[in-house]
Amino acid sequence: MKRRLFAGAAAVITLAGDSRPRAGKAMSELGIVENGSVGVDERGEITWVGPDAHVPRQWRDEATIIDCRDRVLMPAFVDSHTHLVWGGDRNDELVARLRGADYEEILAEGGGILSSVRQTRALDDEALYQQSLERIARMRRCGTTTFEIKSGYGLDRATELRQLKVARALASEGGYRVKTTCLAAHAIPESARTDATTRAAWIDEICTSILPEVAAAALADFADVFCDRGAYTVEESRRVLRAAHALGMGIRIHANELGPTGGARLAAELGASSADHLLYLDDDDRRALREAGVVATLLPGTSLVLGKPYASGRALLDAGVPVAVATDCNPGSCPFENLAMVLALACFGNRLTPAEAICAATHNAAASLGLADMVGSLQPGRRADLLVLATRDVRDLVAHAASPLVEQVWQDGVRVA
Amino acid sequence: MKRRLFAGAAAVITLAGDSRPRAGKAMSELGIVENGSVGVDERGEITWVGPDAHVPRQWRDEATIIDCRDRVLMPAFVDSHTHLVWGGDRNDELVARLRGADYEEILAEGGGILSSVRQTRALDDEALYQQSLERIARMRRCGTTTFEIKSGYGLDRATELRQLKVARALASEGGYRVKTTCLAAHAIPESARTDATTRAAWIDEICTSILPEVAAAALADFADVFCDRGAYTVEESRRVLRAAHALGMGIRIHANELGPTGGARLAAELGASSADHLLYLDDDDRRALREAGVVATLLPGTSLVLGKPYASGRALLDAGVPVAVATDCNPGSCPFENLAMVLALACFGNRLTPAEAICAATHNAAASLGLADMVGSLQPGRRADLLVLATRDVRDLVAHAASPLVEQVWQDGVRVA
Repeated sequence: MKRRLFAGAAAVITLAGDSRPRAGKAMSELGIVENGSVGVDERGEITWVGPDAHVPRQWRDEATIIDCRDRVLMPAFVDSHTHLVWGGDRNDELVARLRGADYEEILAEGGGILSSVRQTRALDDEALYQQSLERIARMRRCGTTTFEIKSGYGLDRATELRQLKVARALASEGGYRVKTTCLAAHAIPESARTDATTRAAWIDEICTSILPEVAAAALADFADVFCDRGAYTVEESRRVLRAAHALGMGIRIHANELGPTGGARLAAELGASSADHLLYLDDDDRRALREAGVVATLLPGTSLVLGKPYASGRALLDAGVPVAVATDCNPGSCPFENLAMVLALACFGNRLTPAEAICAATHNAAASLGLADMVGSLQPGRRADLLVLATRDVRDLVAHAASPLVEQVWQDGVRVA
Repeated sequence: MKRRLFAGAAAVITLAGDSRPRAGKAMSELGIVENGSVGVDERGEITWVGPDAHVPRQWRDEATIIDCRDRVLMPAFVDSHTHLVWGGDRNDELVARLRGADYEEILAEGGGILSSVRQTRALDDEALYQQSLERIARMRRCGTTTFEIKSGYGLDRATELRQLKVARALASEGGYRVKTTCLAAHAIPESARTDATTRAAWIDEICTSILPEVAAAALADFADVFCDRGAYTVEESRRVLRAAHALGMGIRIHANELGPTGGARLAAELGASSADHLLYLDDDDRRALREAGVVATLLPGTSLVLGKPYASGRALLDAGVPVAVATDCNPGSCPFENLAMVLALACFGNRLTPAEAICAATHNAAASLGLADMVGSLQPGRRADLLVLATRDVRDLVAHAASPLVEQVWQDGVRVA
């Protein structure tokens, strides 16, 4: 591969800085270089960023030039919360919900997540891979090159492991940049819903069998728990996440989506990398998240689909909590794949500014995955995962939400869409 | 041009039926032909629709085949409410609003619409055409081939006429399918905001000078008024729309967006083709709309951007009112260009089902423009304006909102995206 020079962009959104998640003023500083250029070496690494007028002579002579006039260059999106490996669809349920059926009632009746569990278990590895590949390919065409992928549609040892293997295969065979998360504690399995002993045995199995096996095979970088009303209690969640931590996994938590059920505080207590959803928080919760350095991951698509309120992103930002934004891509509560569109929802719904939302969907999302030294910003030493936008003003991503502004998607210095 | 056969689609969404706007059950019947094909003649007209197994032999022998296996074929979108001819942008105002500034206050202070008026007046015809062309090109890439375009960023005779001429040029030079609407009565011009005599003189000018000149030059198919709090009163609106009607124009109304201000009733009284926005309606308003045969045009993008409630599409449908969905594409309250995304918002926000939303954004929108005998359905005699979707289930347009599912866009039997 030759060196490449992305030359003369109206604006380069560098997000330059260190790899910690950003809050407050740091989050709204995009590090814009006007009339800027980005140089990428033969290995797909960024080695030069600056004003076009200062590009070293040898770059112009030797590199392949990508003309970025009247364009914005920005880091590719990082989607830090997805469940994109699943089988089948729940479009019938979608219509039922639009006609008035309630998400929690559907779940309680064995639909919802449990319907996806049945459809996922029914697919062989190859079919599961192919369906997931179609989704992740569409997601990358929308500008995302880095993905967190959770299991959680297995709810038994074998299928949880299969889901994680498919997620790893999307990286090793598919060429996608992926971090994986074991979410065996997603819904309560059907068999354990009415019987406390079976339920306790399932928690045991997660802690003493599934997580250790996942760790031994290096199948997951993180563990996650759906800690909420109708799902796992704080005590159950603590047990699972402590077991994961002891095995060397990072921690993420589905917290405070359906009620003020203590998940956010648990995230702070355990020093989780991310607490996600966060519709029901008070000032003390936000203070705890800030003090523990937890990234608050907002999933506004889910609020839109379920007709729920949007998490108060503004209150989190004002409290000094670093915020990320992700799709939550999953078969039920939000099958959205276009993170650029969700970024706009984070503005209109969660009340982030465009600059905050852009940091949230790139650098902060990467930081929550421990990948901010690799992606999420355009500066020397980072991978050349970047977008060329067909506009001179990056705020158009929000104003013209879901317009076809993402003109080129590059990963590791190779054009992928 | 050769004949074309769109062959073997998993589903053809025909929306077959007469050209009247549809309500109730008729609106949720998509007229699906499974494993279906569509034949288009040399002039870009649909001449054959049916199961692939029944395609006449000569079609297979003589037509160019477009393989639609594992794809959905559906009518191209019709965007029946846009303001897409304007100058500049209001991205600074967007950020101010996200930080808490109020849309009505911004308007009252001479920002908002009046800011776009200043930017539009400042552009010459060519610059205004080019900026508008960029927008409409992006919109067509998202699947819309038919556009209603309003003036209303001139607010003086000369600029209103210029806007309408640019809209006509997008049809004659640009090749887009366009209906135009004179919305001289959009915001109250700056000079008329505090002085009743000037205000009355402006209404006079619209009725006795602008509209007659627009009619004489055949520049507008419809007239429209922003009849709401802070804009034009019911009495002023009635006067303007009666003048337009007497000149042979159709009638549309911006009604009941900011309050229950009587616009919807006026639409019923005047037999308007469309009443638009409709956030504040009671049962009597809905009954009046149904009895008068007015199409209710929902603009959920604007609710999202302004943080307002969504109009109750469900209540309108239950009352038997035919519903259309459009982008409202404009520089301030909703610069969205992707009608497929707005269609999804109509489901999650206005509580339409996917089938209802699809009818709303195709046939019913076309019917409100008097174009349903030409576009909005796939049946013999209609123009071949159609979409090839990269899915087997049209509901994915909603479930995977804003995903790149619109694979091909055809207008008059010619591929345009």
